[in-house]
Amino acid sequence: MLLPLDPKVAVIGGGSSGLTCIKCCLDEGLEPVCFESSDDIGGLWRFKEDPESDRASIYHSLIINTSKEMMCFSDYPIPAHFPNYMHNSLIMDYFRMYAEHFQLTRYIHFQTTVCSVKQRPDFSYSGQWDVVVKNKEGREEKYIFDAVMICIGHHVYPNLPLKDFPGIETFKGDWMHSRDYKIPEQWRNKRVVVIGIGNSGGDIAVELSRAAQQVFLSTRRGAWILNRVGKNGIPLDLLFNRVMYLLGYVLPFGFLCSLWECAVNKRFNHTLYSLKPKHRLMSQHPTVSDELPNRIISGTVLVKPNICRFQDSSVVFEDGTVEDDIDLVVFATGYRFAFPFLSSPVLSVSENRASLYKHVFPPDLERHTLAIIGLVQPLGAIMPISEMQARWATRVFKGLNKLPSTDRMWKDIKSVTEEMSKRYVPSARHTIQVDFTPYMDELANQFGVRPNILKLLLTDPRLGFSVLFGPCTPYQFRLRGPGKWAGARNAILTVWDRVSKPMMTRVVPEPRPSRLPKLLVLSTLLVAAIYAGKRHSKLLESPMAALNNWRMYVPAAVLRVLKI
Amino acid sequence: MLLPLDPKVAVIGGGSSGLTCIKCCLDEGLEPVCFESSDDIGGLWRFKEDPESDRASIYHSLIINTSKEMMCFSDYPIPAHFPNYMHNSLIMDYFRMYAEHFQLTRYIHFQTTVCSVKQRPDFSYSGQWDVVVKNKEGREEKYIFDAVMICIGHHVYPNLPLKDFPGIETFKGDWMHSRDYKIPEQWRNKRVVVIGIGNSGGDIAVELSRAAQQVFLSTRRGAWILNRVGKNGIPLDLLFNRVMYLLGYVLPFGFLCSLWECAVNKRFNHTLYSLKPKHRLMSQHPTVSDELPNRIISGTVLVKPNICRFQDSSVVFEDGTVEDDIDLVVFATGYRFAFPFLSSPVLSVSENRASLYKHVFPPDLERHTLAIIGLVQPLGAIMPISEMQARWATRVFKGLNKLPSTDRMWKDIKSVTEEMSKRYVPSARHTIQVDFTPYMDELANQFGVRPNILKLLLTDPRLGFSVLFGPCTPYQFRLRGPGKWAGARNAILTVWDRVSKPMMTRVVPEPRPSRLPKLLVLSTLLVAAIYAGKRHSKLLESPMAALNNWRMYVPAAVLRVLKI
Repeated sequence: MLLPLDPKVAVIGGGSSGLTCIKCCLDEGLEPVCFESSDDIGGLWRFKEDPESDRASIYHSLIINTSKEMMCFSDYPIPAHFPNYMHNSLIMDYFRMYAEHFQLTRYIHFQTTVCSVKQRPDFSYSGQWDVVVKNKEGREEKYIFDAVMICIGHHVYPNLPLKDFPGIETFKGDWMHSRDYKIPEQWRNKRVVVIGIGNSGGDIAVELSRAAQQVFLSTRRGAWILNRVGKNGIPLDLLFNRVMYLLGYVLPFGFLCSLWECAVNKRFNHTLYSLKPKHRLMSQHPTVSDELPNRIISGTVLVKPNICRFQDSSVVFEDGTVEDDIDLVVFATGYRFAFPFLSSPVLSVSENRASLYKHVFPPDLERHTLAIIGLVQPLGAIMPISEMQARWATRVFKGLNKLPSTDRMWKDIKSVTEEMSKRYVPSARHTIQVDFTPYMDELANQFGVRPNILKLLLTDPRLGFSVLFGPCTPYQFRLRGPGKWAGARNAILTVWDRVSKPMMTRVVPEPRPSRLPKLLVLSTLLVAAIYAGKRHSKLLESPMAALNNWRMYVPAAVLRVLKI
Repeated sequence: MLLPLDPKVAVIGGGSSGLTCIKCCLDEGLEPVCFESSDDIGGLWRFKEDPESDRASIYHSLIINTSKEMMCFSDYPIPAHFPNYMHNSLIMDYFRMYAEHFQLTRYIHFQTTVCSVKQRPDFSYSGQWDVVVKNKEGREEKYIFDAVMICIGHHVYPNLPLKDFPGIETFKGDWMHSRDYKIPEQWRNKRVVVIGIGNSGGDIAVELSRAAQQVFLSTRRGAWILNRVGKNGIPLDLLFNRVMYLLGYVLPFGFLCSLWECAVNKRFNHTLYSLKPKHRLMSQHPTVSDELPNRIISGTVLVKPNICRFQDSSVVFEDGTVEDDIDLVVFATGYRFAFPFLSSPVLSVSENRASLYKHVFPPDLERHTLAIIGLVQPLGAIMPISEMQARWATRVFKGLNKLPSTDRMWKDIKSVTEEMSKRYVPSARHTIQVDFTPYMDELANQFGVRPNILKLLLTDPRLGFSVLFGPCTPYQFRLRGPGKWAGARNAILTVWDRVSKPMMTRVVPEPRPSRLPKLLVLSTLLVAAIYAGKRHSKLLESPMAALNNWRMYVPAAVLRVLKI
C-alpha cells in the first residue's frame, strides 16, 4: 500500500538519528515533523553542565572513539581539517553544519515532548498513527501521521543495579551514575571507585586518576582494551576493510579472537594488568582506551574485582579486600532503553531486548509504518547506520521496498538473537550488537545500494581497489541505487587526505637519504633486516604518500596472512 | 693524603642525591652535615602548591618516567606493592622510608641556606673548606669541612629565553615557566600554548588538553616520543639489558637509531603526527609520553612549529600561522644550573656547561675534596647514579681511590664533551647527558664494584644470566667490592616479582586450554602461525611465570637479531 500523496512522518528525537531521518524523509519526498524535547539538536552529543532528566548526558571531555571518516553521514564528509577523533563539541559543530546544509532545523518542534504514539482505529488499512505531544507552552497537541520514526537512542535511562550492591544505602560517600559525571575538579585528592569497565568507566577512571588521590576500577568480567591510535598511528577503525570481513566469515571465531588477543596483549599483557576476562575478545562490546594501561602501570588506577558490599565509607570487594574512606562511587553501569510513549502491543521491551526485524521494524504490525532508528550498538559508528536504516525505512514507508512476511521476519529475528547469544557474553549490554560493515551491507542489500565490487574492479579499478582494501567508509553506500551521490567516488578516493590533513600542523623535515650502516662484521648479517625496515619506514616518510599507498589499505595482519 | 681521623663532610641539599650522600658518608665512616634550605627532605620531588624561589618545583600529577626497579637506591629496593612508575607522592614516601631506615634525617640542618663554600687558606695541604650558612633564625654560621658534596640538582633555575620571543612584553594573556604550573583547573576552556616538547612540555600539554579548549604544542625541533608502557606492557626501561648495550657498542649509531625509529613509528608515525625531528632518535634526550599521540589524533593538542613572535593576545608561528585569543603560554623550556655559593676558580659554569671529571670532580683542584653529585641527565634514573657517584666520591675523599693527574682528567673531559657533541643535537639541554648502564659501569670500575659477569656465569649461572640478560638494576653494583650488600643477589632474582606485584589486584581466569581452530582450508595454512602465536601468548598467561621466563629478559629486537 502506498502512503497518501503528501505523507507525513513523525520523527521523535532531534539527535544524530533524528537529523538524518528528517533528511532521508525529504530525500524521499515525505514530510517530516520532528519532535525534540530539549531546546536544541544533537541529542547525546550536546554537552550540558547539568544533566536533564529523560535526556542523555555526557562528560565534558568526551571524545568519540570512531574516527571521522567512519562516523560521518554518507553524503556529507566531515571537513578535512577536523580531527580524526572528535571532541563532543566538534561533533555538535558537524551536526549543525549538516542540519544547516540540508535545511533540517525548520522541521523540528523544540521543547516538545511526545506523550503517546498509538495506532489509529483504521491502522490496518491506513497505517496511520495518533501522536500526542506536549508543546513548549505545556499544552497537548494531537497529530495524525502516516509513519513514525523513533530516534531516541539508547542512552537515556541509566542502568543502576543498586540491588546488586548491598549496603549502598549505608554508604557515607557520594555516588552517582556515570551520566551525572561531568568534570574531575571536585574530586581532587579524593578516593574514587568506578564500577564498570565499558567506555564510560574506562574514560572516567582515567580522567579522575589525574586528579584523585586514588581510583579503583571495579570490573566483574575484565575486558580487552583496544586503542584509538592503531598501528602506525592510523585510526584503528580505518585499519579494517572488506577483505578482513571476508576472512572473518571464513576463519573460525576462536582463531580470529586469538589473533586479536595476541595483538592487544603485545601492547600490554592483559593478564599482567589484571584485566584479562574469561571471554574472548570478540565476545564483548570493545572498550577503547589509549590511556588506561599507563594509568594502571603508574598505580593511579587499581583494577579491582566486583564489589561485594558497601559499609559506611568502605567498599568490600569480592576477593575480600577492603578499601576505606571512599569519597565517590561512579556507577558506569550502562543504560537501558525504553519507549514509554509506545504501548506494549506495538513494541515490548524486557531485559533490554526488543524484537525488531533487522533492528528497525516491529514484525507484528499490519502496516510497516513504524521504524526504530539507531537502536543498535555497533562495532563502529552509529550515525551512518542510523542514516542507512532511515534510507531503508522511508522507502518501506513509501512501499518502494517490501518487508517479508511476519513469519519470516520472526525467523530472522530469532536467528539473529541466537547468533548474538552464541557470540556474546550474556549481558543486557549485548542485546543490540551489530558489526558495522556486515550490517551496513545487509541493509544496503534491501534497497540496492550495496557497492558492486566486482563491477567496480572491472570498470573503475582504482575505486574498486579502494572499496575492497580501504576502510569501509559510509560513502561506499552512495555509489549506486536510490540516493546515489555524485561526490561519493571522490570522497572514497580522498579519505587519506582528510585523515592526514588535521595533523599536518608543522612542516616535518624531508625524508633523509637512505644511509647504509658502515661495514662491520655483525652489521652485514643484518643488512637484509635494515633494508626491509627502511623500505617500510620510507613508506611513512611523507604522510600523504604513505596514506595514499595501497599497502596502507591492507592491514598488517592480512598482509602477513597473505604473505604479500 | 688521608683526611683527619674524624672527617666532616658538608652535604649541600637534602634531595635524593643529598640523602644518599649522607648514607654513603656514614658507610665510609665520614661525618656528614647536610644543609637543606627548605624544611623537609625530597628536593625536586616534594610537591608544594606554591613554588618557592631557589627550589625545584613540580606539577601535581607528575609521575616519574623511570620504573621503580631502575630508580631505587641499590641496597634498598622499593617495596613490592609500590607501582612501577611512581607518582611524586610515592617517591617521597620511598625517600622517607630510606631516610628513616638508615637514620639519615638527624644529619640534616633544615631551613639552612649555604651562602659560600671557599677553599681554606691551607687548602693545598688540608683540602679543607670554609662553609658559611644562614640558619633558620637568619644568622650566619661558619663551618670548616674536610670535604664538600654539592647535591642541588639541575632543576632549580628556570631557563626562560624571553629574548627569543619578540613581543612577549606586549602579550596580554598569562605566561609562566613550567615550574610554576601546578594543576589544570584554572585553565578550563582556555586556549593554551605550551613551548617545548621535553618531558614537562609533553606532560603539561597532555594534562591541559583535557580541560582547555585547545592546546598548541610548539616545538622547534620536533621529538621522538617513547612510552612508559613497553612491549607486552613491561616498563620500557626494563626491556634493556647488557647484551643490548654490548650491541650498542658494536653496531653503527645510525643503524641502532633506525631500529628504534622504526619501532616508535610503528606505534605512531612521527611524520603523520608532525613530530618528526631532523635529528636521530638517540641524538636527543628522550621525551616519554604515553598519552600524547591520543591527544594529537583527537586534535586536543595541535603540534605547531617554533614561535616567531607575540602580538597582543596572539601568537605568530614560524610558518606564518597565527593563533588568536591565547590565554596562557607555558614555557617548558627547561632549566639551567648554577652554583652561586661557589667562586668561579673552583668551578665555572657557562652555557650550562661545567667541566667535571666523570661529571663529579672539578679537575683543577689541588685536593679532590669537592664532588658535584647528581649533575647528570641520564637516559635512566638519576637516584642510583647519584648514589654511585657518592660511593665513589667518599672513597676518593678518604684516599682509598685516587684520581688521575689533572692533565689526564682534562683529556677525559674533552673526549667526553666531544663524544657528546657528536651524538647530540647542540642544545643547553645536552651538556650533562649520560647513558645509564655504561656510566654506572664506568663509575663502578673506579672502585671495583662492577659485576664480574663471566665469573658469575661460571659460579652462579642463574644470577649471571639475570645480570647479563635482565634489566641492569642498581642491585648489580652491590654484588661485590666495597659496599657489598648481602641482599643484592635476591633483589636481582626477584625483580619480576616486584614488577608484577602492584598490578596483581584482581584474580584473572586460568589460562584457557589451547583450542585448535576447526578445520578449514584456509585455516590449515595458518596453523603454524597460530601455534607460534599461542605459544607466545601462553608465556604471558600467568604474570609470574611470564616474567620469570628468560625469554622475557631478552627484548624482541635482540631476539630477532640473534634469531633465537
